Amino acid sequence: MAKFLTNRDENYAKWYNDLVIKADLAENSAVRGCMVIKPYGYAIWEKIQAELDRMFKATGHVNAYFPIFIPKSFFSKEAAHVKGFAKECAVVTHYRLKNDENGKGIVVDPTAKLEEELIIRPTSETIIWNSYKNWIHSYRDLPILINQWVNVVRWEMRTRLFLRTTEFLWQEGHTAHATREEAIEETERMINVYADFAENFMALPVVKGYKSENERFAGAIDTYAIEAIMQDGKALQAGTSHFLGQNFAKAFDVQFTDKTGKLDYVWATSWGLSTRMIGALIMAHSDNHGLVLPPRLAPIQVVIIPIYKSSEQLLKINETAKKIKSGLETIGISVKYDDKDNNTPGWKFADYELKGVPVRLAIGPRDLEHSTIEVARRDTLKKETIAIASVNDYVIKLLDEIQSNIYLKANEFRKQNTFYIDKWDDFVDTLNNKGGFIMSHWDGTAETEERIKEETKATIRCIPFDAAEEDGKCIYSGKPSKKRVLFAISY
Amino acid sequence: MAKFLTNRDENYAKWYNDLVIKADLAENSAVRGCMVIKPYGYAIWEKIQAELDRMFKATGHVNAYFPIFIPKSFFSKEAAHVKGFAKECAVVTHYRLKNDENGKGIVVDPTAKLEEELIIRPTSETIIWNSYKNWIHSYRDLPILINQWVNVVRWEMRTRLFLRTTEFLWQEGHTAHATREEAIEETERMINVYADFAENFMALPVVKGYKSENERFAGAIDTYAIEAIMQDGKALQAGTSHFLGQNFAKAFDVQFTDKTGKLDYVWATSWGLSTRMIGALIMAHSDNHGLVLPPRLAPIQVVIIPIYKSSEQLLKINETAKKIKSGLETIGISVKYDDKDNNTPGWKFADYELKGVPVRLAIGPRDLEHSTIEVARRDTLKKETIAIASVNDYVIKLLDEIQSNIYLKANEFRKQNTFYIDKWDDFVDTLNNKGGFIMSHWDGTAETEERIKEETKATIRCIPFDAAEEDGKCIYSGKPSKKRVLFAISY
Repeated sequence: MAKFLTNRDENYAKWYNDLVIKADLAENSAVRGCMVIKPYGYAIWEKIQAELDRMFKATGHVNAYFPIFIPKSFFSKEAAHVKGFAKECAVVTHYRLKNDENGKGIVVDPTAKLEEELIIRPTSETIIWNSYKNWIHSYRDLPILINQWVNVVRWEMRTRLFLRTTEFLWQEGHTAHATREEAIEETERMINVYADFAENFMALPVVKGYKSENERFAGAIDTYAIEAIMQDGKALQAGTSHFLGQNFAKAFDVQFTDKTGKLDYVWATSWGLSTRMIGALIMAHSDNHGLVLPPRLAPIQVVIIPIYKSSEQLLKINETAKKIKSGLETIGISVKYDDKDNNTPGWKFADYELKGVPVRLAIGPRDLEHSTIEVARRDTLKKETIAIASVNDYVIKLLDEIQSNIYLKANEFRKQNTFYIDKWDDFVDTLNNKGGFIMSHWDGTAETEERIKEETKATIRCIPFDAAEEDGKCIYSGKPSKKRVLFAISY
Repeated sequence: MAKFLTNRDENYAKWYNDLVIKADLAENSAVRGCMVIKPYGYAIWEKIQAELDRMFKATGHVNAYFPIFIPKSFFSKEAAHVKGFAKECAVVTHYRLKNDENGKGIVVDPTAKLEEELIIRPTSETIIWNSYKNWIHSYRDLPILINQWVNVVRWEMRTRLFLRTTEFLWQEGHTAHATREEAIEETERMINVYADFAENFMALPVVKGYKSENERFAGAIDTYAIEAIMQDGKALQAGTSHFLGQNFAKAFDVQFTDKTGKLDYVWATSWGLSTRMIGALIMAHSDNHGLVLPPRLAPIQVVIIPIYKSSEQLLKINETAKKIKSGLETIGISVKYDDKDNNTPGWKFADYELKGVPVRLAIGPRDLEHSTIEVARRDTLKKETIAIASVNDYVIKLLDEIQSNIYLKANEFRKQNTFYIDKWDDFVDTLNNKGGFIMSHWDGTAETEERIKEETKATIRCIPFDAAEEDGKCIYSGKPSKKRVLFAISY
């Protein structure tokens, strides 16, 4: 199977699409821009959800559910917000179908027109703040720390599986606070949760930073993001956390009485992470053999494959293999034993490499004789033969090692592809020939950022939190600058 | 707080609505018929999801995700299906908003009209079978055992929180099989899973049975349902499993090659359970003090409340209470320690009764002296004082006892309110004065069922799987009948 995968270095975009399809993660549906997330892809999303949900709850958040529909008038209340989303809204205008009187089949019933159109949520700030209005009266009602796991719709013109789809799944946190400081603290807390998740579960090193004004969320005072580098040198925004100030509280007139009895508008944050992360996971680590999944997010961590010629051999192998499987399961490892007889071991090896299963165990008659088993790791494709007696200890260590190796490899790649550039010609040249993360000085103006984008397609991915103070000159305008920002061409 | 709850026996409908609002489970949103599921209500849904998802996976199912949009033409392919759902469809007709040229604010952009309208899924058979078409070629591709957890929209004219809302959350399983027998077996398996879940987790006794033709799912050959009785004597359909025959395979032309090389259409099932179950949970068990939650689905199983006069006393109680809390948590019990000082213990007692927390522990200075603690159970409101040393053992047994007591109480209620009736006058009289489950003979015709519905509002809830064969006469027409069916007025 793997041989049908397009070569990553020849056509990265096609390699990615091939991989998503052939590893059975997702496919395009009959509805323009909407994907079907297939069971194997969805199992990765379930792993992502479980870890993030645990992290959200550990930081005091609870889940809830708000309607998918947003009345058009709500949507229009925050000026910057509607400006940012109006061009990509799916709009419900009717609520009934009927049989056409002229026999043309099923048609929309013109008498069932809504008085006010409903927008399918592209994000839920407006419908949620309209509810918060009734929930918040006093400082005692604060903070509200709510998250929801939902589908959202943004009518994108150019779509790609996982990376940009008309409908996608995500979580969106919406919090309400009594003070500016507390809201900023929450915005920071959540970008740190995302970074922690990316680095420790996705094995994805990320740069945390502020978005420039051009790239901010529509309606935010400040947007924090985590940015990761993909193997083609492009950047991918992997999660954002927004400090919304009092913008939505003012739009929906949400005021509260503070401890001193004074009325004030409530402070807000929102933060989201989507199925796009599965795209990042694929693009950051995978190779020409297929997916490479970090063990902590792999739906199947270990696959066991029997090697046999006779059904008698298979019977004996079954016994040992099942013992190994249940032994590994008792220490919390997810294992699949593939004894289906319609495919050869070689076919199975290639298939599980394509699917990115971190560890493969193969066991044949000779292994049985010697009480050994062959272990292959997906990240390096190296094999080793070990004693069956040591398999639990060996595998648990190996999974940790793979997890950390994948991270280190991605980190090394980022290091090799991060360039500190001070001359415009080098900047352009690097973008044209290598791509990567470019750390350069910028004069802080939206105009300069626009020009750079027009000339090179690169944008400011973020102003890193940890950027050192240094005197420099803007890469484009030559005006003075105090710190470097991260430029890249992005997904 | 509880004193503001409408009395259950005076106005059941208002009692229910009051309870949903005051226990902070859900509320109506600004969008007609759509609810906001608040954190406490959503936490119950998370518990329901976790248990069902585990049961689905244990029976070989996997999760996936299909688009929320269904092209109108797909929707129309199965004749009975579209007939059943056409009158309650939300329809997307446009994909962009814009600023009105005459300054009337944000309007739908008439140039962004979709060529084909998209229906928001009221259920997903059509979009899913359009995908299955490409997945299934041979018997080797079968069975497909997929479930999805999603939101759906049915444009209901009269809505009630949890019981009937325009948008609701549910799971929908969609399976594909090589034979009729296998599909029927799956349909049965899943109604059994639902019944198991209802009885063992929701503490809700249910009657399993077939739906009559009038009440079948639009597009099904057979619908199996579980039916539960509520405290007002009405029936609530709590989950359905459909044998779809080859209807959808034919509508979407999904054929496969069987083991003998012959082409045949694929056999299908679908099955679903929704947030409506939360309504059933509330209505089956709760009382004039508030919710009564079965421990296995209670977000908080035990609440600990300190009783103190001085902050010195509170400090000492804190120490003991926190030990008790962590002790209970180590044996897997979810505990909340409420030491907030803005409410009195009495207020807290009433509030946690309203919220249905199964066990309340109260601890004061006298308890500290004697190393005791007061235990109150929500189902019977009985209190006892026990030694702190025995609290783990005591509570774990008590939770089991409450779970089983709630079930037995509901079962006894059903017994008391199930009537075997053979005369039409008694039938009418019982429905008018008592309600309940009525087991009567029926001649098997849709016409008779319609008439009975017109005259009494009662419908056939199901034809119980375990109905005994007996000779009788139809309660309405007097024609011969072989078994009794379950009549009731339903939600």
